[in-house]
Amino acid sequence: MPGGQLSLSTNSVVEDESWLWIQIKAEARRDAESEPALASYLYSTILCHSSLDRSLSFHLANKLSSTTLVSTLLYDLFLNSFSTDPTLRSATVADLRATRARDPACVSYSHCLLNYKGFLACQAHRVSHKLWTQSRRPLALALHSRIADVFAIDIHPGAKIGKGVLFDHATGVVIGETAVIGNNVSILHHVTLGGTGKACGDRHPKICDGVLIGAGATVLGNIKIGEGAKIGAGSVVLKDVPPRTTAVGNPARLVGGRDQPSKHEDVPGESMDHTSFISEWSDYII
Amino acid sequence: MPGGQLSLSTNSVVEDESWLWIQIKAEARRDAESEPALASYLYSTILCHSSLDRSLSFHLANKLSSTTLVSTLLYDLFLNSFSTDPTLRSATVADLRATRARDPACVSYSHCLLNYKGFLACQAHRVSHKLWTQSRRPLALALHSRIADVFAIDIHPGAKIGKGVLFDHATGVVIGETAVIGNNVSILHHVTLGGTGKACGDRHPKICDGVLIGAGATVLGNIKIGEGAKIGAGSVVLKDVPPRTTAVGNPARLVGGRDQPSKHEDVPGESMDHTSFISEWSDYII
Amino acid sequence: MPGGQLSLSTNSVVEDESWLWIQIKAEARRDAESEPALASYLYSTILCHSSLDRSLSFHLANKLSSTTLVSTLLYDLFLNSFSTDPTLRSATVADLRATRARDPACVSYSHCLLNYKGFLACQAHRVSHKLWTQSRRPLALALHSRIADVFAIDIHPGAKIGKGVLFDHATGVVIGETAVIGNNVSILHHVTLGGTGKACGDRHPKICDGVLIGAGATVLGNIKIGEGAKIGAGSVVLKDVPPRTTAVGNPARLVGGRDQPSKHEDVPGESMDHTSFISEWSDYII
Amino acid sequence: MPGGQLSLSTNSVVEDESWLWIQIKAEARRDAESEPALASYLYSTILCHSSLDRSLSFHLANKLSSTTLVSTLLYDLFLNSFSTDPTLRSATVADLRATRARDPACVSYSHCLLNYKGFLACQAHRVSHKLWTQSRRPLALALHSRIADVFAIDIHPGAKIGKGVLFDHATGVVIGETAVIGNNVSILHHVTLGGTGKACGDRHPKICDGVLIGAGATVLGNIKIGEGAKIGAGSVVLKDVPPRTTAVGNPARLVGGRDQPSKHEDVPGESMDHTSFISEWSDYII
Amino acid sequence: MPGGQLSLSTNSVVEDESWLWIQIKAEARRDAESEPALASYLYSTILCHSSLDRSLSFHLANKLSSTTLVSTLLYDLFLNSFSTDPTLRSATVADLRATRARDPACVSYSHCLLNYKGFLACQAHRVSHKLWTQSRRPLALALHSRIADVFAIDIHPGAKIGKGVLFDHATGVVIGETAVIGNNVSILHHVTLGGTGKACGDRHPKICDGVLIGAGATVLGNIKIGEGAKIGAGSVVLKDVPPRTTAVGNPARLVGGRDQPSKHEDVPGESMDHTSFISEWSDYII
Amino acid sequence: MPGGQLSLSTNSVVEDESWLWIQIKAEARRDAESEPALASYLYSTILCHSSLDRSLSFHLANKLSSTTLVSTLLYDLFLNSFSTDPTLRSATVADLRATRARDPACVSYSHCLLNYKGFLACQAHRVSHKLWTQSRRPLALALHSRIADVFAIDIHPGAKIGKGVLFDHATGVVIGETAVIGNNVSILHHVTLGGTGKACGDRHPKICDGVLIGAGATVLGNIKIGEGAKIGAGSVVLKDVPPRTTAVGNPARLVGGRDQPSKHEDVPGESMDHTSFISEWSDYII
Repeated sequence: MPGGQLSLSTNSVVEDESWLWIQIKAEARRDAESEPALASYLYSTILCHSSLDRSLSFHLANKLSSTTLVSTLLYDLFLNSFSTDPTLRSATVADLRATRARDPACVSYSHCLLNYKGFLACQAHRVSHKLWTQSRRPLALALHSRIADVFAIDIHPGAKIGKGVLFDHATGVVIGETAVIGNNVSILHHVTLGGTGKACGDRHPKICDGVLIGAGATVLGNIKIGEGAKIGAGSVVLKDVPPRTTAVGNPARLVGGRDQPSKHEDVPGESMDHTSFISEWSDYII
Repeated sequence: MPGGQLSLSTNSVVEDESWLWIQIKAEARRDAESEPALASYLYSTILCHSSLDRSLSFHLANKLSSTTLVSTLLYDLFLNSFSTDPTLRSATVADLRATRARDPACVSYSHCLLNYKGFLACQAHRVSHKLWTQSRRPLALALHSRIADVFAIDIHPGAKIGKGVLFDHATGVVIGETAVIGNNVSILHHVTLGGTGKACGDRHPKICDGVLIGAGATVLGNIKIGEGAKIGAGSVVLKDVPPRTTAVGNPARLVGGRDQPSKHEDVPGESMDHTSFISEWSDYII
Repeated sequence: MPGGQLSLSTNSVVEDESWLWIQIKAEARRDAESEPALASYLYSTILCHSSLDRSLSFHLANKLSSTTLVSTLLYDLFLNSFSTDPTLRSATVADLRATRARDPACVSYSHCLLNYKGFLACQAHRVSHKLWTQSRRPLALALHSRIADVFAIDIHPGAKIGKGVLFDHATGVVIGETAVIGNNVSILHHVTLGGTGKACGDRHPKICDGVLIGAGATVLGNIKIGEGAKIGAGSVVLKDVPPRTTAVGNPARLVGGRDQPSKHEDVPGESMDHTSFISEWSDYII
Repeated sequence: MPGGQLSLSTNSVVEDESWLWIQIKAEARRDAESEPALASYLYSTILCHSSLDRSLSFHLANKLSSTTLVSTLLYDLFLNSFSTDPTLRSATVADLRATRARDPACVSYSHCLLNYKGFLACQAHRVSHKLWTQSRRPLALALHSRIADVFAIDIHPGAKIGKGVLFDHATGVVIGETAVIGNNVSILHHVTLGGTGKACGDRHPKICDGVLIGAGATVLGNIKIGEGAKIGAGSVVLKDVPPRTTAVGNPARLVGGRDQPSKHEDVPGESMDHTSFISEWSDYII
Repeated sequence: MPGGQLSLSTNSVVEDESWLWIQIKAEARRDAESEPALASYLYSTILCHSSLDRSLSFHLANKLSSTTLVSTLLYDLFLNSFSTDPTLRSATVADLRATRARDPACVSYSHCLLNYKGFLACQAHRVSHKLWTQSRRPLALALHSRIADVFAIDIHPGAKIGKGVLFDHATGVVIGETAVIGNNVSILHHVTLGGTGKACGDRHPKICDGVLIGAGATVLGNIKIGEGAKIGAGSVVLKDVPPRTTAVGNPARLVGGRDQPSKHEDVPGESMDHTSFISEWSDYII
Repeated sequence: MPGGQLSLSTNSVVEDESWLWIQIKAEARRDAESEPALASYLYSTILCHSSLDRSLSFHLANKLSSTTLVSTLLYDLFLNSFSTDPTLRSATVADLRATRARDPACVSYSHCLLNYKGFLACQAHRVSHKLWTQSRRPLALALHSRIADVFAIDIHPGAKIGKGVLFDHATGVVIGETAVIGNNVSILHHVTLGGTGKACGDRHPKICDGVLIGAGATVLGNIKIGEGAKIGAGSVVLKDVPPRTTAVGNPARLVGGRDQPSKHEDVPGESMDHTSFISEWSDYII
């Protein structure tokens, strides 16, 4: 089970967090030394803080603040959430590791922490989701609105998101209220996990562990994208997709056919293989 | 005609606006009491204002201001437009009602007023459109640019938009200069109503009353999407779509076929049924 | 060769720049006179500056600054880059001309300079690309992050972009690290030039001179889109596209068929003809 | 009576205001043309506004706003006060005229409107005083606090100030709750009109028409400074000063002696003669 | 001994703080209800916080932040100082009580907390003094500089200030590095406790418990102002002043004469009697 | 002649500036290492800049900017002035040296550069004075107004100020249009160099080289304070003061008497001896 490796004991979570924070500070220190024009930015966002959760709370508060939602209030909110909830912190750690491991353009942990809008939006979403489950809905929705304005990423506070998730590029991602995303999932930009209309209740997709969803894919309705499945870029999916299969096209079809779809061995959410054997597929021959 | 119910007398418009404003204040008061961390935000945006147009002008001015376009100038511009033009105000009221009625994720009118970027961008667009028709084009375009930067929603000031319109999620919507959108239309995120190239003149789509356009759909050229038609998510449409029919796919085809397309009874722009009988359609079976 | 007309002598570049700056100031002066509410904006962004590179540096610095990356630092960075590198300035001039010539909604050069997020993101990208090639990667990535947040346009600092390029509407554009874009290319919003996964190395598309890529198109992998080719809106392309042909659909097919694709005479990146003979194609008949 | 010339009919007040506004706009236009670096400032503060009260409200709102008291709220407050109360506006006009007439360093009306902190603090005080008399004391005190922070001028909202008053340089002025200042008074910087301790009730000085109070003078207690009297710089005054006499020194003495003090003919608040016949006085001979 | 009543047990300090915080919240709630235009301000500064030290840290951080010293960093600094040091908190409580008791213009505790620049500067000074004693001098001096800019109050981080101190009006107060101020002292605006030149070492005044120093008084050198003494407004003092005596004038003389000065019974720092028996004194008869 | 040592050749000025800049960077680096909470501030204000004039321009621009006078415009103005005028730069260097040498509370050059409001106001004044002499008066006055608001220091752009000048504490200093200040002068806070009324023309004091003016002194009229003279704190001076004499009191008298005043040997503007032999004087014996 892809999510299994994340069930660490509390001790090892704390150790993991400390180790990562040491790497991040070392990276930032190296960058500050080589680039004085960036040193002020690196000190205020990373090097003057005593822990990862303080650095992240500071960075999110400054990015998401507005004239009417001032940064110090948001900082309090984030810091209180991250410092009291180890689950949030271990998800942050897993997301940092996932981004570093899967995206060849990610050159360092600090690069992800500071600059990846998908990573930042996801961490802020986890706080808004926590508020949502505590019935602090107006605050959750105000935070959601700031994330949508600032990052152009629209994740409803009700949506549940696992650990080790990579939102790559992330602009334009829309995820509905009753969507669920498992562990080790990778989702590209412009992906929609949408509802089917104005019916209330459970109406959004369930994305299982290890799934990869390509850029611009639209997945609609309370359907299940099975463990380790892959959705090709630009696909429109309105039906369940079985585990370890690949759906492509608009309307989406299973590679290999509905009855005996091809099955892959790897976990696409981790291997990030967007195109192999999709592009081999006859339909993709120009 | 779906737009018919909007032809209210001036009196009833004013009453409608007052009623709605009372609801919004009551919602905001309730939220401020239950969530002190949000009370400052709710007082500054809603509770300290004497009318809906003042609250909306304040909120838009703060969101759209920049270092070089200061908030007080924008506030003057918005307040002057909304307070002197009842048509703008009744469109605001109709949009608020439409959002509340059609989007199950919209929990209150104040939620829409404060947090829906599609709603806010549309109200700001109406002011830029008014400036456009008054030949104040540089100002209209500067406002348009701020809306595009802040909300990632790009509606040309020349575009005409009816009442009771819902832009759901709204990130990435692009609407061209000569596009026309009727009443009671619902448009999801990443929808493009684009031109056909560098020809001048009337070159963008005409969307009739009651149409629903799914996420990521691209509609290009001076074509007509008939009353109550439905465009599936991710579709690419370059031809007219008859009233009450459904077009899906890339390239788009009519559900039921070109010669005898299936016709639906409901008004998709209001019923918001994105998938029924599209997903039944054979092409959508994975 | 479409790019040929850009190989101007240094002298003529300077003359071209001066001529354009005079036009821009004249436009801004005219607009300031007709619209006092905009005069402050026009003076601070254009009329108080002595050259195009100062105006552009000022405008970008104010748009891209944040709480932790202050505007004066960014201004220094931009001004130093533009004032010392005539290549950057001639690319700016070519982009302004391209936008004015190809987009019928572009009413003036100053309109493009001030309000086109695609234009502004592209100029800022060129500075981040220059930093990237100078091995100042942390600064390049911080700048990239600001562009992605503010404009919702995500161009990796490593990507190479030619001159005379139009990013129309531009929201949601994603361009990967090893992508190359030639001269006189036009790219619409939501276009992805993406990689194929987590493999390192040269993994993104090469877009030749004069190409037009329609809204929402997704081009993945180290493939070549030949000179003067056209990619239809919403297409998903994973294979090379020959010069002067048109690829449409998801998955994309060549208009006219794989073996004897239709060839067009014009340069779509300049003519901006999005739909002709695509919409004539049988598949596009609804 | 010095204040007499201010009892104009409503008509002439409006005419006076219009005339002055025309001068101010002409001055600002001339300055904007000669100094492009200042044009943006002049357009946003003066030239884009349709009336003096709008310009003043805009300028005060921007100067006095803070993170927690946003500019648009203050703008509403100032504009509402000035536009509905002709008394406030005629006092503004009288103060502008007084400054221009009495201070040789004041080169234009627009110079005073934009740059004189004493003038600006006084206009903002008049609004806080109006709120005070309307029993809106918390708001009056919040405004008072902003004036004290921004201008280092501390005028209690309860203090009554006449028309045609010049606060020259003005930094450090402190005026207590029950102080009263007549018409055509001139007060230099660091002047204190203070109380006598913690007794409540009427406890601050009463300054009659035409008085001149020199820099750093301290006037304490419920005492009366008679019409046309003059208080020398640095004096400490704890007793009534008769009309048209001059008090100087610490402790203050009447020039000419207590029994037969010298009387001057001119109105010092208007003539601004700080030193003549003080410096002739034997005590001032070094 | 005036300071005696402050030697409370830790328990009673905590109780005192809680009691005061309850009063402050009640006052703020009452004001927010009666004045919606101020409610946003009151919620963000007081009502959304869970304790007095959080409210004060928030307020100081927002007031003292600048482009290069961002508010969230200052908030961390203040909150960390106040929350870990009960001495700082009990001094804050004593100052709030002193202001409310001694200044008839202080209408409520919340008025003092929000609006008294002397109170706010003093609380911020205590944090900078703490940093100074911890040898974190550059940070202490940066904070000192912000206090001097924002409030026009210049208290060197090295200066020691007791509890129950009132800085009334406070603009222009200057206090040097080796000055010491006892408990229950009241100091008016423009008061200088200065050094004697460029000699290093202990060179500033020592102000004993219960002293009152009037507006604009200048006290220079390492001299002692005895317990319960009173310095008249505008006095210049370069010699010790015995306990319970009154010094007035420039140069200062003791009321009653050097040899047998008049002695008062009350504690002027608490009674705030600025003028009685000074103004009776023959020299003050105009 | 005290100013003599400043007549350095251009070469040595440049060397002097370089040497000082190296010290300042070393100090800032040491402080950044010992205090991470301040490192961001030190990098953005000092360590990321390549020269003293860039650092100073950056710091002044950020301090003096406002909503309507944006920081990048001010930065351009300052940088252009300092980088093209070596006289301005050598005055900056001399002022930094003077502050460090004369004020025992000044712990480093960087401390003065960053935190001394008197130093910063003086450097900004020199730029506004330069504009004044270039007949760019509206800009000079707008800058003057910002200095007066931000630092509570009011120096008219017309005033001429020499080199090696120390404004200690500086809050409340007011200097009129036709005042002239020589080299190596030291001026404390609340000092007024004022005019005599509304007469135009040359009407303000002339302060010769090496003068020391104590806190709160008021000097009025076109009088001459002779070389090396000393004005006691709180004095009010309306007559010429001979060289190397001391004037004290309100009204001011010469120490030693009018006819044979005591003469001192040292240069008080450099020795900063505020009180010796003033406090010995009989009048100062309490």
